[in-house]
Amino acid sequence: MPLSGVRVVDLTRIIAGPFCTMLLADLGADVIKIEPPGDGDPLREQGEKVEGLSWYYASYNRNKRSLSVDLRSDAGKEVLARLIERSDVLVENYRPGVLTKMGFPPDRLQQLNPRLVVGSVSGFGADGPYAQRPAFDFIAQAMSGYMSVNGAEGSEPLRTGIPISDLVAGLYGALGIVAALHARGQTGQGQQVGISLLDGLVSFLSFMASNYLATGKAPLRTGNDHPLVAPYGLFAASDGPIAVAPSHVGIYERLLKALGLERLRDDPDFATNALRMQNRDRLRAEIEAVTRHHSQAHWIEHLNAAGVPCGPVLDLAQVFRDPQVMHQEMVIDVPHPGRGTVRMHGFPLKFSGTPCRMRRPAPELGADTRAVLVELGYDQPTIASMQQRGIV
Amino acid sequence: MPLSGVRVVDLTRIIAGPFCTMLLADLGADVIKIEPPGDGDPLREQGEKVEGLSWYYASYNRNKRSLSVDLRSDAGKEVLARLIERSDVLVENYRPGVLTKMGFPPDRLQQLNPRLVVGSVSGFGADGPYAQRPAFDFIAQAMSGYMSVNGAEGSEPLRTGIPISDLVAGLYGALGIVAALHARGQTGQGQQVGISLLDGLVSFLSFMASNYLATGKAPLRTGNDHPLVAPYGLFAASDGPIAVAPSHVGIYERLLKALGLERLRDDPDFATNALRMQNRDRLRAEIEAVTRHHSQAHWIEHLNAAGVPCGPVLDLAQVFRDPQVMHQEMVIDVPHPGRGTVRMHGFPLKFSGTPCRMRRPAPELGADTRAVLVELGYDQPTIASMQQRGIV
Repeated sequence: MPLSGVRVVDLTRIIAGPFCTMLLADLGADVIKIEPPGDGDPLREQGEKVEGLSWYYASYNRNKRSLSVDLRSDAGKEVLARLIERSDVLVENYRPGVLTKMGFPPDRLQQLNPRLVVGSVSGFGADGPYAQRPAFDFIAQAMSGYMSVNGAEGSEPLRTGIPISDLVAGLYGALGIVAALHARGQTGQGQQVGISLLDGLVSFLSFMASNYLATGKAPLRTGNDHPLVAPYGLFAASDGPIAVAPSHVGIYERLLKALGLERLRDDPDFATNALRMQNRDRLRAEIEAVTRHHSQAHWIEHLNAAGVPCGPVLDLAQVFRDPQVMHQEMVIDVPHPGRGTVRMHGFPLKFSGTPCRMRRPAPELGADTRAVLVELGYDQPTIASMQQRGIV
Repeated sequence: MPLSGVRVVDLTRIIAGPFCTMLLADLGADVIKIEPPGDGDPLREQGEKVEGLSWYYASYNRNKRSLSVDLRSDAGKEVLARLIERSDVLVENYRPGVLTKMGFPPDRLQQLNPRLVVGSVSGFGADGPYAQRPAFDFIAQAMSGYMSVNGAEGSEPLRTGIPISDLVAGLYGALGIVAALHARGQTGQGQQVGISLLDGLVSFLSFMASNYLATGKAPLRTGNDHPLVAPYGLFAASDGPIAVAPSHVGIYERLLKALGLERLRDDPDFATNALRMQNRDRLRAEIEAVTRHHSQAHWIEHLNAAGVPCGPVLDLAQVFRDPQVMHQEMVIDVPHPGRGTVRMHGFPLKFSGTPCRMRRPAPELGADTRAVLVELGYDQPTIASMQQRGIV
């Protein structure tokens, strides 16, 4: 696997950090998830449970091992220090400065292991006026401008349904960490790499950002209509809406032909994209006067065959039985001993040579504590003593 | 830089592929963008222009070089073959099979360069029933379930404002490519790595997916309210809304204290999260009866100090002058000779040792054609002849 032989110390919890380390684990890294004894990662208690297991937790902690250790104790800190000495990567999502307060400032990490890559996922970055604020996805969505461009025309700014800032930061974090490992192959040196929920989303504003920066005009929310292209959006078929996206004039002309609406090519109201934007409502009515006579399935088949991007709007029940999603193995069944079989998302990255795969289900809290301590050179009496004292 | 010495042949256009190769270029790779003579990447004509330059194009093609060559001609194909022999990575976002039809099937790529990493960004994946459909962000949003969980309560499924499936696929693609480069460091072998717009978004459904898979109940749209937590959302201050996200009961109690609403702790309507969800409207009224007496700035300061995640809802004009965004250098000024200075998003990944940086602005079409051809060993008469024939 791409990251075989890479060992990751994982100090993260909830979702942005654990998604980052899940990606590393899916790529083959040996991820050792450090959890406090007792409760472990709070995500274990979030989301819907089956047989006592949170499927949210199970999805985002697959392929990892769990080491339960109290990092407030000296003996616990010593375990972490030994692990750092023997690892390639450390990932943390504490508030900036907390790792230092725990006794692991950057110079000590460097001293323990000059080859260590340290990945930090934070809300707002390592420094700056908001660095010490508590972070949360919703706040990053609000402050990044993401909400200002999400929502129906004339409605309030809208949070998107998934924790997008966490996921984007986690994915960026994995890229940064693997790039730093690649650099280490050349230099022999580790380094720190940071990503924040806020910065990740700001970098995702795409044409909204570049158009604003070019013109000074902040974009408006436009719901399902595209702010720059018409026709575009949801159109009524006989049994529900279809999404149609003719991204340029060539595809628009294919759409007219496929709908038998060639006469609109000569309609002065629709001669240019700008005019079609102006006369969007009339154009929609013309199109729907045709589309509503046949089913979604008919139009999806017919328009795609004509080269016009078109698809249904699916809910999750439909997504997870969709033939393409199944074919791509984007939903997989993972046996969890004692907890039944968990369904979860598959691996979106498809490697021809070294594919991602399930090696182990998400761990029970502390399931690998003893094995990891033995790997770190602890003898049985010491392990027993730490267990008695509640340190591991 | 992390990817110094890595050469990338970039056959992509529009946004998902170019975002992927921009990430590689920002990390230090030498990205050679191949464009057809004449018009080049269609993105050059999209978005707002200043001095004839699309700032959308400029943002997503920074740090790259441009080689203009007609890949339909035999001489052009020979240029591509030579480039492949001398590169580490090829990235393409053609429809599956097109690269093969162009004369570059997987076995030829492998023969030309066994160390080549081939990254493919597609709409629906390399195979499966929809593989040959034309792809577009809006369709991926519709078919992935993303739209089904985005939108206000009771409203229709909603497209999110940015081309999220393109950006997620591009970011995944960069991760996959760098991971494959890391693997090549061990094995000496290249490989193919694929990502699709659809699969990327399906993997981002997070708790929406795991809760659906655990229960069989497709989630509803809940607008700015959280489907599982209350209070949470936008609350009215005297001069506009604030976003407040108390993610667990400890933060909820801090919120009550900070608002002087400790009496609500003993209110039986609000005793548990489930009851607070049920009585959300009354709870909102209680909170807003306090928050509307002071400004957004007051509450943002006060609530964050109390450990409650809170922030303003910013539009892009506010985002790009925000002190934290500025401090993190998430908006940068890039001089483009002859086109003025372009403002664009900065680098969200912060490396301590080998930082991302601007090395060159987005290239004019074919700006590096001659230089690259010389690097590939073409002599001046051959280059002149290819120019005369319109091949480069």
